[in-house]
Amino acid sequence: LRVRWALEEAELPYEQRLLGLGEQKAADYRRLQPFGQVPVLEDDGLVLFESGAIVLHIAERSPALLPADPTLRARARAWVFAALNSIEPPLQHLAEIDLFNADQGWAKARRPAVLERVKARLGDLTAALGEREYLEGQFTAGDLLMTTVLHIVRHTDLLRSEFPALDAYRARCESRPAFARALAAQMAPFALNGPAAQSA
Amino acid sequence: LRVRWALEEAELPYEQRLLGLGEQKAADYRRLQPFGQVPVLEDDGLVLFESGAIVLHIAERSPALLPADPTLRARARAWVFAALNSIEPPLQHLAEIDLFNADQGWAKARRPAVLERVKARLGDLTAALGEREYLEGQFTAGDLLMTTVLHIVRHTDLLRSEFPALDAYRARCESRPAFARALAAQMAPFALNGPAAQSA
Repeated sequence: LRVRWALEEAELPYEQRLLGLGEQKAADYRRLQPFGQVPVLEDDGLVLFESGAIVLHIAERSPALLPADPTLRARARAWVFAALNSIEPPLQHLAEIDLFNADQGWAKARRPAVLERVKARLGDLTAALGEREYLEGQFTAGDLLMTTVLHIVRHTDLLRSEFPALDAYRARCESRPAFARALAAQMAPFALNGPAAQSA
Repeated sequence: LRVRWALEEAELPYEQRLLGLGEQKAADYRRLQPFGQVPVLEDDGLVLFESGAIVLHIAERSPALLPADPTLRARARAWVFAALNSIEPPLQHLAEIDLFNADQGWAKARRPAVLERVKARLGDLTAALGEREYLEGQFTAGDLLMTTVLHIVRHTDLLRSEFPALDAYRARCESRPAFARALAAQMAPFALNGPAAQSA
């Protein structure tokens, strides 16, 4: 979704190739993506992995995602890294506990400390956002990635109940037409291949 | 160290400003670094945070860290993200268990799964490196960050005993003169302010 959203914001045409069952962990795909993750971007001979690198690659082709001003560009890129390195790891840790290990003893013992770390980072992010609509005044690739990262704790009431400014920020970013187009494109293959399609 | 090493590779002059006790978490510093982390780069009016963003900013000023060829540049940048997003989080998780929580019940219960994840990622990285000296044939900012990330598990025997090719790669990167200069510069303030200096 991150990459589709970036492509839609930049209004760049793309073709998708979905992976078949088992393909993601196979040697052929690992030659494109060392860790067997999705997505991979193929662009005129270049094979690119890591969604942060792919989004930046796309962003550099469009002022919709990276401003022309060098200082703003560098700041927007700092937010790309902040989303992926300072916010995502603690949120991912919490989601992993809640979604896959909620019944485990270690998870129950560890959750309070992980939640505290999540709250500390979200508090810092709230302060950094302040009264602005976007992290650097205008929407950038940093906001795009931050929004998808905040989405990781959608299984909790955390944003709504304790960080309403971040929840409003997330909703503001997700109300962009390019996000709606990306989400529709993301869901389309599921509709085609899902149970409803199969039974039709 | 990441930023110093990048500056030394790029042969760019810099001045350091160390933070006083408590300064890192204070509001003044948080206006520069939203999460109260180090380091921050100030460059001609630009204030930049996140070591990944800072290293890329420096790298773009020197072919020693980013090749001129656009495809290689993009690939090097993918390795910057891979180091920080795919390798660092599991290694950091293991280090946090071993260095700060080794006696905790949850840590003992969780460690095997975290170690498995670390080994899976290091196995993938070994395969991606293959027989090459550096991840993309020549040393780049991606190798610089990957080396500092591999350093996170130096409290274990993991690289030496199970991933010797990665250990050799790490040693190869750390044998660069710029790394030695960066490390010496990093340690100098400790020597000045450490117990030995104080008692002298």
